[in-house]
Amino acid sequence: MTMTEEWFQGRLLELPQDECLELLAVKQVGRLAYADEDGLAVAPVNYVVDGGSVYFRTSPHTSLGRNLLNATVAFEVDEVDDFTQSGWSVLVRGPAERVGVDDLPAAARPTPWAQGSRTLHVRIRPRSVTGRRLLPG
Amino acid sequence: MTMTEEWFQGRLLELPQDECLELLAVKQVGRLAYADEDGLAVAPVNYVVDGGSVYFRTSPHTSLGRNLLNATVAFEVDEVDDFTQSGWSVLVRGPAERVGVDDLPAAARPTPWAQGSRTLHVRIRPRSVTGRRLLPG
Repeated sequence: MTMTEEWFQGRLLELPQDECLELLAVKQVGRLAYADEDGLAVAPVNYVVDGGSVYFRTSPHTSLGRNLLNATVAFEVDEVDDFTQSGWSVLVRGPAERVGVDDLPAAARPTPWAQGSRTLHVRIRPRSVTGRRLLPG
Repeated sequence: MTMTEEWFQGRLLELPQDECLELLAVKQVGRLAYADEDGLAVAPVNYVVDGGSVYFRTSPHTSLGRNLLNATVAFEVDEVDDFTQSGWSVLVRGPAERVGVDDLPAAARPTPWAQGSRTLHVRIRPRSVTGRRLLPG
């Protein structure tokens, strides 16, 4: 924490984009927001970042798999400290698209934590990446 | 963990509703998915649960505050263990509505972690509460 930030304890700071991308790369699980026939939904997925895009795998037969392709989704990662009531969050917004596994570099091939037939490889190309940090009060 | 669950290590289990509500009550921060003029967005908020509803406070002047009222939103809480690649998540879906602070019981008055003029009290009345647990592989 810099001296400048200490002046803003308990306050929300907008994060610069390079810091957002760094934070995005250190986490393993994020939350994907998408719309299905019942409205909005959020599901955690484990992911990898490669070349500025977010990659994950899911089943083509779930609500998530059926509803996210060619839709604009939101993907969020965060870290929260309940004790100091502080943390950060990064939000990626952009279209989700199916990708062929053979077209992917090894670094962009996530291994799903959940078992099952997770054959749908998805890439989110960020249209925007934003983030905020909440400093301890 | 019960013996039954041990047969499903690395698998996703649907959680019964009473367990979802218990898990919802133990966390302090969740992620709210809503739609604004740029599409879907997700923002972490600290919250309380009272009488089966989710309550939080925000600023009426942010994108979140301007766009969530009278919309159907999704609210997600989770806990993830990166090391064992396991965890759980609970998803609440329902309409968000403005509530007057004077109408709220004390237990339903969250104190925002972030400073600033967070004068908008919001209640989410769950239309559905679902959850899943991913057991360690």
